[in-house]
Amino acid sequence: MRGPDRPQASDIAAKNSGRELVALTADVFARLRTRSPRVHCITNSVAQNFTANILLAVGAIPAMTIAPDEVGAFVARADALLVNLGTFDAERRAAVDIAIEVAATHAKPWVLDPVFIDRSEQRAVYAKTLLGNSPRAIRLNSAEFIALGGGSDDAGVSAFAQMHRTVVGLTGQIDFVADGARAFRFDNGHPWMGQVTAMGCAASALVAAALAVETDPCVATAAALLGLGVAGEWAGTLAKGPGTFAVGIIDALHRLDGAMLERARVL
Amino acid sequence: MRGPDRPQASDIAAKNSGRELVALTADVFARLRTRSPRVHCITNSVAQNFTANILLAVGAIPAMTIAPDEVGAFVARADALLVNLGTFDAERRAAVDIAIEVAATHAKPWVLDPVFIDRSEQRAVYAKTLLGNSPRAIRLNSAEFIALGGGSDDAGVSAFAQMHRTVVGLTGQIDFVADGARAFRFDNGHPWMGQVTAMGCAASALVAAALAVETDPCVATAAALLGLGVAGEWAGTLAKGPGTFAVGIIDALHRLDGAMLERARVL
Amino acid sequence: MRGPDRPQASDIAAKNSGRELVALTADVFARLRTRSPRVHCITNSVAQNFTANILLAVGAIPAMTIAPDEVGAFVARADALLVNLGTFDAERRAAVDIAIEVAATHAKPWVLDPVFIDRSEQRAVYAKTLLGNSPRAIRLNSAEFIALGGGSDDAGVSAFAQMHRTVVGLTGQIDFVADGARAFRFDNGHPWMGQVTAMGCAASALVAAALAVETDPCVATAAALLGLGVAGEWAGTLAKGPGTFAVGIIDALHRLDGAMLERARVL
Repeated sequence: MRGPDRPQASDIAAKNSGRELVALTADVFARLRTRSPRVHCITNSVAQNFTANILLAVGAIPAMTIAPDEVGAFVARADALLVNLGTFDAERRAAVDIAIEVAATHAKPWVLDPVFIDRSEQRAVYAKTLLGNSPRAIRLNSAEFIALGGGSDDAGVSAFAQMHRTVVGLTGQIDFVADGARAFRFDNGHPWMGQVTAMGCAASALVAAALAVETDPCVATAAALLGLGVAGEWAGTLAKGPGTFAVGIIDALHRLDGAMLERARVL
Repeated sequence: MRGPDRPQASDIAAKNSGRELVALTADVFARLRTRSPRVHCITNSVAQNFTANILLAVGAIPAMTIAPDEVGAFVARADALLVNLGTFDAERRAAVDIAIEVAATHAKPWVLDPVFIDRSEQRAVYAKTLLGNSPRAIRLNSAEFIALGGGSDDAGVSAFAQMHRTVVGLTGQIDFVADGARAFRFDNGHPWMGQVTAMGCAASALVAAALAVETDPCVATAAALLGLGVAGEWAGTLAKGPGTFAVGIIDALHRLDGAMLERARVL
Repeated sequence: MRGPDRPQASDIAAKNSGRELVALTADVFARLRTRSPRVHCITNSVAQNFTANILLAVGAIPAMTIAPDEVGAFVARADALLVNLGTFDAERRAAVDIAIEVAATHAKPWVLDPVFIDRSEQRAVYAKTLLGNSPRAIRLNSAEFIALGGGSDDAGVSAFAQMHRTVVGLTGQIDFVADGARAFRFDNGHPWMGQVTAMGCAASALVAAALAVETDPCVATAAALLGLGVAGEWAGTLAKGPGTFAVGIIDALHRLDGAMLERARVL
């Protein structure tokens, strides 16, 4: 048990690291507004509209074509790529192959969101093959992480990130971001985030946008997820239910700044 | 003509039946929140986002993939299935065949929503073949019902339901639900429900969710449609137009309970 | 330099023409509410839901199927057609060919929205071939207009419209509508219109709806775009960010009338 008046050295270090992450998060969102990065999203049809509006609200510019003869040109002109496996079909799969190759050629960061791979064996197999294509970050929940072959505790997440040379952004009651060497943990958000469709997909799109303006992928991933959690918490104070909440979180992300980020609880 | 002070026996029976339906509706929505049934939706791309948010708002968990190699696994793990014929294409048609077969194998209830079959001869033909696959309920408007071969009066609806051993949920100015033996009629809702796209699709998705938690399909269908109508009426008192209305009805469904259901007008 | 007290004849003419356009705009929106035209939209999956809700809010009735065996029947029963090239794929392309032919056969107006042709060479080539199929109007931004082969100044726009016997509706900071003989210019709107996905797509859908109730295509196009700009400006006064703005502009369009149109700034 630890007395309230005698913080230990590790608490102070964590507190400083937390303050730093909050400052970096404010900075990443400020950069999104001034640089307006292009984010190409191969995402499911349920999530497309909400994802586009989330990206536009923070200052990024989304594009979403999956046509095989166009997607390469769009990715080549984008600053980051999102590959989301929801409502997956043959055309999307073909688009993913082209998009990832173009991203590799142009050294553009890409994010993997393996939606619902815990509910479909074939989708899980496909997601695992994509791990070999060097996603800069992976955003998912714990059921999806286990289906991807990840462990269930923090050490397992870090080991997985290190092995695949990527950043894992694990969202849930508490969000956990790790790249094998470092880890961030924060406790923001609102229960209604789980009652708005495509909230996780939008989180992954924000990670892609952040990677376009922040070279440290671990910081970019943590900033995107912390920003979304704080925006959700802020929106939750004003909403009357999940309908007004889904609208309010877009407003909140649009104005996310250091003042709103005072709600951040980095653990 | 009937005097105001002398209610007839049939009025009293109707009033009791109405009170019972209202109580059952509150109960069905409470069960949705505690049981969180999975509802697989093969629905049109216009309706996917709104339908998912309506389902999440009441506590259900939607999934929407139509990929032929995945849809079977998703339906097998779902508690109910929705088949909506809007923006119909070859891939959706293939998905429907698989999904209905898996639903039959696992004895899962499925709902047919024959969107716009009054505007396309080929779609009407297809919808009629689906009638042979034992949908637990059909939700549609009167133009679609006529295109499906249904009659235009209450007796015709009941006869159709009996012949096809299903429940017909006919929505319009007044909603009418019949299974051949019983019938419910109620008069809730708001004109803006007709000015929000996918409201009918969302109604059918709610019917599917209700079938997952209520074994009497006639009660499940009536509860879903009465709940939606009351939520719409409540949202209409707060909205400034169809935009805020579409958001507000999600909030209303999220909190639908016995108190809100005092607005119910079961005829 | 011109003194404030001595308006020139051309100012007076412009002012009268502006007042006339505002009155016509109010009239076009009133006609939409009473006539409820059917608008068939071949549009991208990101824009479908928002586009449908915008059309429903003004009183029009949208349909969006792209299935090859249905789209002809839908267009034949529609009053206007929208062809939007966003998230373009093989199935949409096939649908466009059928739809345009049916529209030509039945002399129905159609609108071209060449989304993002500035970012894909192949899409630009395809859009140029569609110019030969007599779109009644084209709605686009200046980058897309240049990719289509248009000029960068007003004279260039008018020349392009005249050459292709169409109306060009160029949206941006200031909107410019020209048919070669006449031109309208107006300065309404709100910065958040650029931060809501599918706002341009919805603008094009409104143009299609207006063409269904107004035989002068230049007036129809200008009325649709002026109405949207004024509704956006009105919504901007109430919104807290792009989320509430996207909802509020639907409410505003639903009630757009002469009183709200007093905000119109026709230049």
